[in-house]
Amino acid sequence: MTDTARGTSRRYGTRPTMKDVAARAGVGLKTVSRVVNGEAGVTPDTERRVQEAITALGFRRNDSARILRKGRTASIGLVLEDLADPFYGPLSRAVEEVARSHGALLINGSSAEDPAREQELVLALCARRVDGLVIIPAGDDHRYLEPEITAGIATVFVDRPAGRIDADAVLCDNFGGARDAVAHLIAHGHRRIGFIGDQPRIHTARERLRGYRSAMAAAGLTVDDSWVSLGSTAPERVRSAATAMLDAPEPVTALFAGNNRVTVTAVRVLGASPRPVALVGFDDFELADLVRPAVTVVAQDPALMGRTAAALLFRRLDGITEPPHHTEIPTRLVPRGSGEIPPTEG
Amino acid sequence: MTDTARGTSRRYGTRPTMKDVAARAGVGLKTVSRVVNGEAGVTPDTERRVQEAITALGFRRNDSARILRKGRTASIGLVLEDLADPFYGPLSRAVEEVARSHGALLINGSSAEDPAREQELVLALCARRVDGLVIIPAGDDHRYLEPEITAGIATVFVDRPAGRIDADAVLCDNFGGARDAVAHLIAHGHRRIGFIGDQPRIHTARERLRGYRSAMAAAGLTVDDSWVSLGSTAPERVRSAATAMLDAPEPVTALFAGNNRVTVTAVRVLGASPRPVALVGFDDFELADLVRPAVTVVAQDPALMGRTAAALLFRRLDGITEPPHHTEIPTRLVPRGSGEIPPTEG
Repeated sequence: MTDTARGTSRRYGTRPTMKDVAARAGVGLKTVSRVVNGEAGVTPDTERRVQEAITALGFRRNDSARILRKGRTASIGLVLEDLADPFYGPLSRAVEEVARSHGALLINGSSAEDPAREQELVLALCARRVDGLVIIPAGDDHRYLEPEITAGIATVFVDRPAGRIDADAVLCDNFGGARDAVAHLIAHGHRRIGFIGDQPRIHTARERLRGYRSAMAAAGLTVDDSWVSLGSTAPERVRSAATAMLDAPEPVTALFAGNNRVTVTAVRVLGASPRPVALVGFDDFELADLVRPAVTVVAQDPALMGRTAAALLFRRLDGITEPPHHTEIPTRLVPRGSGEIPPTEG
Repeated sequence: MTDTARGTSRRYGTRPTMKDVAARAGVGLKTVSRVVNGEAGVTPDTERRVQEAITALGFRRNDSARILRKGRTASIGLVLEDLADPFYGPLSRAVEEVARSHGALLINGSSAEDPAREQELVLALCARRVDGLVIIPAGDDHRYLEPEITAGIATVFVDRPAGRIDADAVLCDNFGGARDAVAHLIAHGHRRIGFIGDQPRIHTARERLRGYRSAMAAAGLTVDDSWVSLGSTAPERVRSAATAMLDAPEPVTALFAGNNRVTVTAVRVLGASPRPVALVGFDDFELADLVRPAVTVVAQDPALMGRTAAALLFRRLDGITEPPHHTEIPTRLVPRGSGEIPPTEG
């Protein structure tokens, strides 16, 4: 059986057609079409003959033809930033569960934080006639989506808002969460607090920086330029930024890490530091409670964000026409030890 | 602009057609078709008028029609087990990178370890005319795929082999890796070693159990039934299995955890144990070196597995016709501390 399938008889691209089914069943093409599409007018005996021919030949209806007729593909697209970032795991899974509960297939891909790749991927999904899109955008200009939205592709942004168009978005309270994190460090006696964040063109990085500055200002603290470092979350970049802050003549006594990629590297750097340095990270991560000291975080709820975005998308597909709105999901400070270390002079 | 796109003028499903473009440009339908498909026979001035109309109307060619004509969609499907399991992050990303380097879109979805859902997803992807599939199977009978493979959909299995058909597969050396892990514990003096693994219907779980038994037998050790527990990797199930082995009258002095989901829960349970218990886990994970004690693992290389599988898929799509083969990727024991703890009597 196996040899038949994969051996000499393999005929790439010679998929059986309705005509083949009709010939084998000894019926007309119209009869096969009726059976395939579940239409009336076929006797039980004929239907059985056609079904046997379908099974024997391995015939399957080409959905591309059906898509052209129906206009609906029962699929939604998810464009995210990095398939390998653990933050997106629960978010993707939640979107998939909601899609599944609506009988839709989830098609996804990642932009690798490249706006051109995001646009290419989004338009490829639109060309395949997905019903809707959930987008974690890499770029900040989404005017390219306007014709698609006008043409009826529902679109919800998640984690980061759309740029230069008004679209639905499900965001977390980046500003408030960051402000809480830094206020927590200040409440534990810190005055010199460093912030290491993602690229400044990313909405979440900017909002978290704004929260950091707001908490510092509220406590009457002036931020030294050398305490803020935005850029790539690659381990080498984060490591050198953290080392510079820790080795300065007046070193920081605490770090606020702008996302889970930064936090993981910060944990490594601080583990090798001769003096204790406090740390609060934005985003929870699986083993945050098991490293020593356990890591205090501002937790987001990526599953809730995904679920909320997907539910909104399907409400749009059901025809609700209210104006686009932004939903903000609150964050939660989880003290575990690293954020409660008091300041020590270097 | 925004209000135009999302406001009262929104017309769900009223995507501009070639006819609309023709009317706006003041040309015939055939001329628009020529421009859209890059065919000859259109003057530069007419082409410019058509392009302007395309831009103004937001017209985009419907790829569903093109797919019907060309037969190739430049996309591949990836069916994995759980979008939220960190093991699949680097694997998915590697498949996506290879697809991208071949100009193909990656479409993926997860089976949630449900064979029926796997089949549904695979056939939905086939119906959408993906060129090929990379599958991490949940089920163990893939005869449903034979018509698709015969019809030309290239298929490579990864992490687990196909069931009841002969198909390409990229696997890791589950047996050898597990045997090495258990031999390592035996070399450190352990005689009573527990194994907690995934569902026995899963290939990797069975192979790792076989490796465990082989290492025990090679050392002349008899495995007590109570030392082996296969089942769900849900934290509660793993926790109760581990607790039973640790609280037995003759408790195990070491645990071999069958995958990263089991290991993470085992680390939690052992962290609360009054006496030190050795641990080796199958699969590396991000913070394995930062928990205390750092976790000794048998590391797989999921990125290499994904890359190898995707590269093989594209070679198949290029037309190589050699018989299906299985590639085995070696594992690597990484001693970090937890696997080198000597036995302590309970």
